[in-house]
Amino acid sequence: MTQQTADIQHLKTLARRISLVENEAVGYEQLLEQLPAGSPTRVIGITGPPGAGKSTLVNTLITTLLAQQKTVAIIAVDPSSPFNFGALLGDRIRMSQHFNNMQVFIRSMANRGALGGLSPKIIEVSDVIKAAGFDYLFIETVGVGQSEVDIAGIADTTVVVLVPEAGDEIQTMKAGLMEVADIFVVNKADRDSADMFVKNLRLLSAERHTRDWQIPVLKTIATRNEGVEELIAAIDKHQQQINGQDRRSILMADKAWQLIQHRRMRNVNKQQLQQQIQQALQEGNFNLYRFINNWQ
Amino acid sequence: MTQQTADIQHLKTLARRISLVENEAVGYEQLLEQLPAGSPTRVIGITGPPGAGKSTLVNTLITTLLAQQKTVAIIAVDPSSPFNFGALLGDRIRMSQHFNNMQVFIRSMANRGALGGLSPKIIEVSDVIKAAGFDYLFIETVGVGQSEVDIAGIADTTVVVLVPEAGDEIQTMKAGLMEVADIFVVNKADRDSADMFVKNLRLLSAERHTRDWQIPVLKTIATRNEGVEELIAAIDKHQQQINGQDRRSILMADKAWQLIQHRRMRNVNKQQLQQQIQQALQEGNFNLYRFINNWQ
Repeated sequence: MTQQTADIQHLKTLARRISLVENEAVGYEQLLEQLPAGSPTRVIGITGPPGAGKSTLVNTLITTLLAQQKTVAIIAVDPSSPFNFGALLGDRIRMSQHFNNMQVFIRSMANRGALGGLSPKIIEVSDVIKAAGFDYLFIETVGVGQSEVDIAGIADTTVVVLVPEAGDEIQTMKAGLMEVADIFVVNKADRDSADMFVKNLRLLSAERHTRDWQIPVLKTIATRNEGVEELIAAIDKHQQQINGQDRRSILMADKAWQLIQHRRMRNVNKQQLQQQIQQALQEGNFNLYRFINNWQ
Repeated sequence: MTQQTADIQHLKTLARRISLVENEAVGYEQLLEQLPAGSPTRVIGITGPPGAGKSTLVNTLITTLLAQQKTVAIIAVDPSSPFNFGALLGDRIRMSQHFNNMQVFIRSMANRGALGGLSPKIIEVSDVIKAAGFDYLFIETVGVGQSEVDIAGIADTTVVVLVPEAGDEIQTMKAGLMEVADIFVVNKADRDSADMFVKNLRLLSAERHTRDWQIPVLKTIATRNEGVEELIAAIDKHQQQINGQDRRSILMADKAWQLIQHRRMRNVNKQQLQQQIQQALQEGNFNLYRFINNWQ
């Protein structure tokens, strides 16, 4: 068996395992329970508002890491929220130059979380991918609302990608992003307003200085491959910082909470609920809280 | 006992009941189970991006409804998300001219939903308020992300408030809001770009015409009390349309789902999870999925 055949076999096995977990097919729980305890994979969340150039940046990151003989996996999260847009599909296509590269594994996932959060499935799939031993796993989400907060619960390092611009709405969004950023990237840094924007962001992130980590604000021009090696260096530096148990257990507790919730709610079906409620409403004297207590 | 004393007594009882439910104090489940089946209260969600003038509009709605001898309750949802801002506090203060009015009940609630959704508490509290027999209950939320979608699951009529302006981010947000709007309000309609904005919005909402309801696009200038009576008329008209059982059971099923989830997860404590995980990590060979299956 050539190395390439072995690689293909490896990726096929991985794809099959992910499908098993996604579909909750027979044996998926055993598969998860048998995942090894440790993984060398750096898990990096890439988030930011639409139009910040996240996909182009991920693309450039992949190219650069491949040149360094690293292996890379990507989970691209398509929000199935009302905010889902055609632009995202465009993003997927732009990344396609890597689809057939053996060192790269790309999986697109819908954000099927019933409550707007990242799906518990993304937690499970990222753990399956980690067990495959890639050097890096990037999880890319569009930061419109809650998802950038959730990604911070899955990724070891969260990179928030912004573009230089002004406006109240953006500022609002940025404050949410501020909370989750381990690294800021100002992309499209050749724009006129870039320097002032970076300066302001540095002031803001300086306020969040901790004993262990000062959030860096990096400039990139992803389309020209500028600043990407510095970003990789910053990611690696952050990964070394977080090897302490404390942050890891907080992340794990978040994941555990979401997974427990998913499992406890698995047998609750909205359509079935609706049918039963419709019938109860017709019978009259309906009270939602009595219904819930008597339910199941 | 004068009418005013009786009113004060009534409001005090209501406030006490809400606190009981908010704190899950002894007897709160019985209280909820004894709520009457029907309520005359129209429940209206008011949502939209920050800066659209939602609070001023609610203020003007209250004034107008009071002049019509109606009683009004308001739940003002402060998102405890990272998007929470001082501006919101300003909104609360602006509404304060009604705080001592006997026909008006105002309650501020934090959005404590662990997953970014509206808290199940808001469902319960709105049901308690409905049982008190107000003519209108307004639930005001800031539409940044998911909350405007969730409000549509609680309110019978969702009013989406926008201001005339352009920009990609706003367009993105608008598409999410488009899904939930029963009525569009273009506030600050004296701005230059208002007519074009209203025209575009009418084209978009025309596409969502259903057999029973054509989403109206109304113009208001809340600060000058313009267009508010037309808005009330549109709300009342929509309320008459939705008296069918179908939509009601869908709304009820959504609420039931959230409440069931809240109850099933009530005994899961993230801090406790973290402590146990930290210990397990130290013992070595930790697997998240084995941990979850063995948990509790």
